[in-house]
Amino acid sequence: MTSGLRAYAARTDGFAAGTDSPVQALEDHCAAITQREGEVNAFVCTDLDAARAAAVEAEARWRSGQPLSPLDGMPFAVKDIIETADFPTAQGVPMLEGERTGRDSASVRALREAGAVIVGKTTTTEFASTELFAATRNPHDLTRTPGGSSSGSAAAVGAGMVPLALASQVVGSTLRPASYNGAFGYKPTTHGLNRGGAFDYLSQSCVGLIGAGLADIWLATRAIASRVGGDPGHVGVLGPDTMPAARRPTRLALLQTDGWDLASAGARSALDTTLGALRSEGIEIVDRGSCRLVAALESAIEQALDKTWRVLVWEMQWPLNTYGARGANAISPAMQQRLAEGRAMTQDDYARALSDRGAARQRLSEVMQAYDAVFTLGATGAAPDDFTTTGDPSFNVPTSYLGAPGLSLPLLADGHMPLGLQVIGAQRADAALFATARWIEETLK
Amino acid sequence: MTSGLRAYAARTDGFAAGTDSPVQALEDHCAAITQREGEVNAFVCTDLDAARAAAVEAEARWRSGQPLSPLDGMPFAVKDIIETADFPTAQGVPMLEGERTGRDSASVRALREAGAVIVGKTTTTEFASTELFAATRNPHDLTRTPGGSSSGSAAAVGAGMVPLALASQVVGSTLRPASYNGAFGYKPTTHGLNRGGAFDYLSQSCVGLIGAGLADIWLATRAIASRVGGDPGHVGVLGPDTMPAARRPTRLALLQTDGWDLASAGARSALDTTLGALRSEGIEIVDRGSCRLVAALESAIEQALDKTWRVLVWEMQWPLNTYGARGANAISPAMQQRLAEGRAMTQDDYARALSDRGAARQRLSEVMQAYDAVFTLGATGAAPDDFTTTGDPSFNVPTSYLGAPGLSLPLLADGHMPLGLQVIGAQRADAALFATARWIEETLK
Repeated sequence: MTSGLRAYAARTDGFAAGTDSPVQALEDHCAAITQREGEVNAFVCTDLDAARAAAVEAEARWRSGQPLSPLDGMPFAVKDIIETADFPTAQGVPMLEGERTGRDSASVRALREAGAVIVGKTTTTEFASTELFAATRNPHDLTRTPGGSSSGSAAAVGAGMVPLALASQVVGSTLRPASYNGAFGYKPTTHGLNRGGAFDYLSQSCVGLIGAGLADIWLATRAIASRVGGDPGHVGVLGPDTMPAARRPTRLALLQTDGWDLASAGARSALDTTLGALRSEGIEIVDRGSCRLVAALESAIEQALDKTWRVLVWEMQWPLNTYGARGANAISPAMQQRLAEGRAMTQDDYARALSDRGAARQRLSEVMQAYDAVFTLGATGAAPDDFTTTGDPSFNVPTSYLGAPGLSLPLLADGHMPLGLQVIGAQRADAALFATARWIEETLK
Repeated sequence: MTSGLRAYAARTDGFAAGTDSPVQALEDHCAAITQREGEVNAFVCTDLDAARAAAVEAEARWRSGQPLSPLDGMPFAVKDIIETADFPTAQGVPMLEGERTGRDSASVRALREAGAVIVGKTTTTEFASTELFAATRNPHDLTRTPGGSSSGSAAAVGAGMVPLALASQVVGSTLRPASYNGAFGYKPTTHGLNRGGAFDYLSQSCVGLIGAGLADIWLATRAIASRVGGDPGHVGVLGPDTMPAARRPTRLALLQTDGWDLASAGARSALDTTLGALRSEGIEIVDRGSCRLVAALESAIEQALDKTWRVLVWEMQWPLNTYGARGANAISPAMQQRLAEGRAMTQDDYARALSDRGAARQRLSEVMQAYDAVFTLGATGAAPDDFTTTGDPSFNVPTSYLGAPGLSLPLLADGHMPLGLQVIGAQRADAALFATARWIEETLK
């Protein structure tokens, strides 16, 4: 189900030799844009002329043996809550269309310094929350949603229009659309990548990356973290500057989450097949029935979506209060409801919500001391054939709530649609997660 | 030395009765603006018509017995790194003059919701760092600097032009100018007040408040914290919504810091007098010579300014890299130097700097388990008669580095100029610090 993907890291070996080039890579993606964008609507805006000029410069650096980094020339798209110097940033909000900050986010600036080539901004839901005003469609089936909130980022990668897109995740906004669009999705450890210069401030939110391959995502992660680190006060994702070697896990924990009861028959069947394949490799797999540590973790993340919203509605009072002050219809009824819920909370309520979250994170730490990784589905099933929803986040919100790093690997299917296998690691052990996920991908694909 | 101050909380008792009013309070401040602003230059911009209209509304609410909060109608000014819906935010940077975000910061929005009346934006140094391009002067002596980076906020309060001003502090940007201008200054526990909507992102920075009285500052603190909390993920300053009762300390720790060797004879003499007064009240006072916990803390904050810059230059790479990309003269040579220092660091260097800071914070916790508060000077002496500097931060930077709450009380003098007495509390015990500081103020003034 990864046939639409066009990875970049896999082709850079040909750049120095001249058998391939950043210009050719960009043109391949531009062809996909020409072919698919009219029906997919992944982009808010693009500047292909500027991208082509940048690719020419990258090509010259590779030819002279002096690329700026291992990803020099990699085309990328940017979720439209993240600022760029050359495009407006509208946050998926009609009243903010055309608003400009004139600067790059930390992530965009770092990628540019590493030679990456910005293609354009991608659609998102209102304030990266639930309401999708853009007409973005799933490239695998135009009658289906791409998911959200990183709608355009996932659709663009899934359609082969870029090998990498910046996203974000506070509930399930990176991993779920990655699953729906047959792309790789990565939600780092909370605070692991610098969010400076993005309208992305919630305590469990983070920069997300959606890509055509694990290596593309890892190179971009390290390009950012090594230059601008994590959020201020946090060192940021550590590890080698090239993709970690595959590492075979010996013990894995299966997490059912609240999503299991909502999963489609096809999704359950796909996970059962995966379980069998992993066990046949000699890997020990436990779940809530066989391991009390996993049972304690499952208990701590019951109703994780409600618990998460308890945190978020308090934190969203600002800026919703100031955007809401612009007029009666400035923010959607759904967001007005969130604002009202936040106003009804006290600081003590918020303190309790943070305390619960901290306790759940401790349960994950205990599991991760005994197991190499946790895994579950990337979504409850195929992307819904319904544009009034961005899909159910039940399998993704625990990863956000737990502040853990998570990857969605496009290895499964639900009917004719792609489905992700989600692998979750220990906080601040993102490189180890990539090593485990690489082994799983190479073994199961 | 506090003769220029005009506190607000002290006069609200007359508002319901009609013997005083928010409109009269504002007019008193407007008179000070008319009289002093031409020579002090505290403001970047003002809108007194809008302020007068808001004061009329506040007056009606007080008269009808329905003020929005205990500070309804309080005029306030806003440091020009903090966003407001109605004014531009230029960050003290010439190239950013006139740039608008169209929204209020979390702090401004919360104060507006509590009924406070915005008067205007106040001058700051470039990016709230070291270069002061504005011609702001010290209202106590126009030949002297107001200090910085919250230059205009401190000068405006010191001149009686407002009873409260929002500021920020990452090195000494609130407490030092408060000391220089004869105002009360408050630097909360790091993350204690929500910084959303301000160009204020460094890990040890925080919203600061400069005011005409402890009660004005406390009311504003609680107006913000109770509505929008601390930075996302942090509960924010807790405590009563009215000013805490005075609490007599029994044991205090004197901190010398790197500043002691730089302090003027007048400043040292003022501190000696304070020491004697506190001891005559029966308070036990220890220092590095008599208490090993204090000695360990002094050791941990040696060269706190260098240690702080080690943290900051890494964190400032963004956004200096993107602002710097606008042109050769977009940022000052001083800031270009900071950017170069940051680029020379690795993530591992930054990790070590954070680790050192964490260890120092632990030393403060140990002191605070045995003592009611720590105290020292608010500055090395009077504001310098030199506009090429904003003064020496040696007495203030430890408070920032330690993430501790600190208050500068305008109780001392150095010659004809005001000087602050700095009182420092335990992290997240801001209300207790106010109670102790109130006792000190009432006893020593």
